Amino acid sequence: MKINCDMGEGFGAWQMGADDQLMPHIDMANIACGLHASDPVTMADCVALAVSHKVSIGAHPGYPDLLGFGRRDFPIEGKELESTVLYQLGALEGICRAHGAQLDYIKPHGALYNKMMRDAATFETLLNAVRCFNANLPLVIQAGSVEANARRREQADKLGVQLWFEAFADRSYENDGSLTPRTVEGAVHNSVEKIILQARQILNEGTVLSRQGDCLTLAADTLCLHGDNPLCVEAAPLIRS
Amino acid sequence: MKINCDMGEGFGAWQMGADDQLMPHIDMANIACGLHASDPVTMADCVALAVSHKVSIGAHPGYPDLLGFGRRDFPIEGKELESTVLYQLGALEGICRAHGAQLDYIKPHGALYNKMMRDAATFETLLNAVRCFNANLPLVIQAGSVEANARRREQADKLGVQLWFEAFADRSYENDGSLTPRTVEGAVHNSVEKIILQARQILNEGTVLSRQGDCLTLAADTLCLHGDNPLCVEAAPLIRS
Amino acid sequence: MKINCDMGEGFGAWQMGADDQLMPHIDMANIACGLHASDPVTMADCVALAVSHKVSIGAHPGYPDLLGFGRRDFPIEGKELESTVLYQLGALEGICRAHGAQLDYIKPHGALYNKMMRDAATFETLLNAVRCFNANLPLVIQAGSVEANARRREQADKLGVQLWFEAFADRSYENDGSLTPRTVEGAVHNSVEKIILQARQILNEGTVLSRQGDCLTLAADTLCLHGDNPLCVEAAPLIRS
Amino acid sequence: MKINCDMGEGFGAWQMGADDQLMPHIDMANIACGLHASDPVTMADCVALAVSHKVSIGAHPGYPDLLGFGRRDFPIEGKELESTVLYQLGALEGICRAHGAQLDYIKPHGALYNKMMRDAATFETLLNAVRCFNANLPLVIQAGSVEANARRREQADKLGVQLWFEAFADRSYENDGSLTPRTVEGAVHNSVEKIILQARQILNEGTVLSRQGDCLTLAADTLCLHGDNPLCVEAAPLIRS
Repeated sequence: MKINCDMGEGFGAWQMGADDQLMPHIDMANIACGLHASDPVTMADCVALAVSHKVSIGAHPGYPDLLGFGRRDFPIEGKELESTVLYQLGALEGICRAHGAQLDYIKPHGALYNKMMRDAATFETLLNAVRCFNANLPLVIQAGSVEANARRREQADKLGVQLWFEAFADRSYENDGSLTPRTVEGAVHNSVEKIILQARQILNEGTVLSRQGDCLTLAADTLCLHGDNPLCVEAAPLIRS
Repeated sequence: MKINCDMGEGFGAWQMGADDQLMPHIDMANIACGLHASDPVTMADCVALAVSHKVSIGAHPGYPDLLGFGRRDFPIEGKELESTVLYQLGALEGICRAHGAQLDYIKPHGALYNKMMRDAATFETLLNAVRCFNANLPLVIQAGSVEANARRREQADKLGVQLWFEAFADRSYENDGSLTPRTVEGAVHNSVEKIILQARQILNEGTVLSRQGDCLTLAADTLCLHGDNPLCVEAAPLIRS
Repeated sequence: MKINCDMGEGFGAWQMGADDQLMPHIDMANIACGLHASDPVTMADCVALAVSHKVSIGAHPGYPDLLGFGRRDFPIEGKELESTVLYQLGALEGICRAHGAQLDYIKPHGALYNKMMRDAATFETLLNAVRCFNANLPLVIQAGSVEANARRREQADKLGVQLWFEAFADRSYENDGSLTPRTVEGAVHNSVEKIILQARQILNEGTVLSRQGDCLTLAADTLCLHGDNPLCVEAAPLIRS
Repeated sequence: MKINCDMGEGFGAWQMGADDQLMPHIDMANIACGLHASDPVTMADCVALAVSHKVSIGAHPGYPDLLGFGRRDFPIEGKELESTVLYQLGALEGICRAHGAQLDYIKPHGALYNKMMRDAATFETLLNAVRCFNANLPLVIQAGSVEANARRREQADKLGVQLWFEAFADRSYENDGSLTPRTVEGAVHNSVEKIILQARQILNEGTVLSRQGDCLTLAADTLCLHGDNPLCVEAAPLIRS
């Protein structure tokens, strides 16, 4: 199972995340595309870093909302959202070409990712954007229950788009397979041990223990680590080995 | 000889140019890429309009300067400029894919275009960006004297990039082949007749009459009309026929 | 009764509205403050124009959303909204000082205005911003029924802020005193005569005829004309006289 | 002698500097105004922090260049620059009013500061902006030789603007009183001891030792510490005591 991580989230003089430290320990770099974070130079540097570590490059498009870092719901949908996503996919691919690299997958960011998971129309719009751009690129979404995964896979199949499902090692799950909201205590694991334990269970058994104590099936292709969580930075090399 | 025109230069609620009126009468649409003008929706609309009129689509990248409309000198160069241009080329190509369209050429905008014509290093950076992105796409630059064209073609050949040279129908020329600065009276022709006369001379004889009255050789592949000049809008269908 | 009009809504090279034509015929200029439209130069030019025509200057703050022109709902509220509004009020006042001018009132723009009218918490936040900035400046809101006006006045009184109520001459009203949504046919009056008729009725009788044909009481202090409606530009001097 | 420090230089989700750590140890907070860094919420938080530590608040306006953090030369001057500065001064003052605070002084940022020091027209424009905004607010500029200070004071006196001169504790000086360019080795002191030593010499003797070893007179009213230099953060409380 591959480890993916959000990368290239600085903006101009502002840094974010620990790209240099994490890149050697991950398999897939989700690179921001300039509308919620990043800029052409930051993107180019991040692509070069990924290439040097033989890490896959994924586009990480978000809402056009620098000030909100793409974490707020943003009132665009349909054709406007599709164009906004295509813009970002193309922009990153343009940067990739200067480094002999190419896009390998697509994973939406922040509030757009969350809306995709709860709103079928937004999911459809993103599938359409991927299909238009390059139907060979898989779309990364959150792994849910077997039924939820199957329902989404069916929707994606109709448009000829492949899905990859991701699980989270540093976040607590609710019984319905959703992430515990960050406002709830214990939503983010507070020790490297817990993160590694959950990662191991997802990898080896395809399950996760919910906050309520149930054992949930979680069929995941890739594991997401948050680069802005220092515990994840610590856990990454351990999970990899 | 083909007619090219800057297009898609609105931004959000703000309009600019007369895209709807001009598109039926031109051959090549230079579409802004979102950093000095345009946005994903404006770009998508402009691409759709070009496709419906079977007009070639060119990327029209500029400095990342919305407030200055890409018309001011902007302090980026080298790798930073290259990444900024690649970002824009890719972004427009991403939008094109939703309309079954593709990029056909590249023409820099405003202050970047002017700097490319007077600064060899900037020209080299742009050639590099085109070469990285897609060496099959020609770069449109200003037609100058036979010697100037040859010198630039030699530089482009080394990087395997094709050049197209453009002439202007609505602007007065100086004896050295440069455009009369807009601050000089008579820099922009003030009648449709003058515009058509100059277009005809460029097309038929490959020459232009300078402001000083000399006859200059001007080997041009394409003729640029300015969409924000109402006389050009009037002249376009006449020149075409 | 004074005529107010949204002004200074260009951005950089992009124009909007007909400031030059309207300014001689209005009493109050609602000037955009740079976050949904305008920029320091556009603001300075608009302030100078207002001063030269002895027109009152009002701040016209909106959501920080250039691309959406402040017309989309935007996810900020509470302290964040308050700071965002104070920023804009101060910015325009800073510009005013270079022209010996001062702010005379405050009128929110677009989606922020609409949210203020339907959401009591947003209205409270705006009242607080005005109170902090300068409690002597009245806040302009939409005139509704007598009861609605009284309820809002009560809320404003508690914070020591004065309200001015505005009516619209070019828009159709529903029986509940709200504006007919733009999606409904006839929402915007399609003749100068209708606009002048409605303006006269509001001025002389303090009433308006609803789309359904009822006569509504409308206690208004000021009449808003939309500068992007050419019929308003035509009607303005007639209404004034 | 007062210690001043650049503050509030985050932008949305991006942090910069160590405002929380430094604020207890300084006298003057130069707060960014949203065009090269900061945003309304960051400004409000920074103003509140300054108020709680009884630190003076200064406006720190810069070029409208978020991506370049105001550190690049930017092609605006004259009336455009004046309006851009007034916009920022007003914006910060608007935020201050929500915290019962007020502006105490003005210090330009980055490339604008540097241009002010080398270009008399830019200095004049900034003096004009201060004079328009509030002639009681001093403008902070770099302390130079006695002659240079006198020449600038004369220019400022004509417009009725007061100057404060600042010196740097963590930067090496050239014999002509300018700062050693950052490209030269030793431009930034690499130990807390050196910083404190230079601070003490400026405070006690009004002189500084140049890189070439000469003793320069440096009549300074305030000492600038750079918040993004960790050694300055360490040195601040020691210098204060």
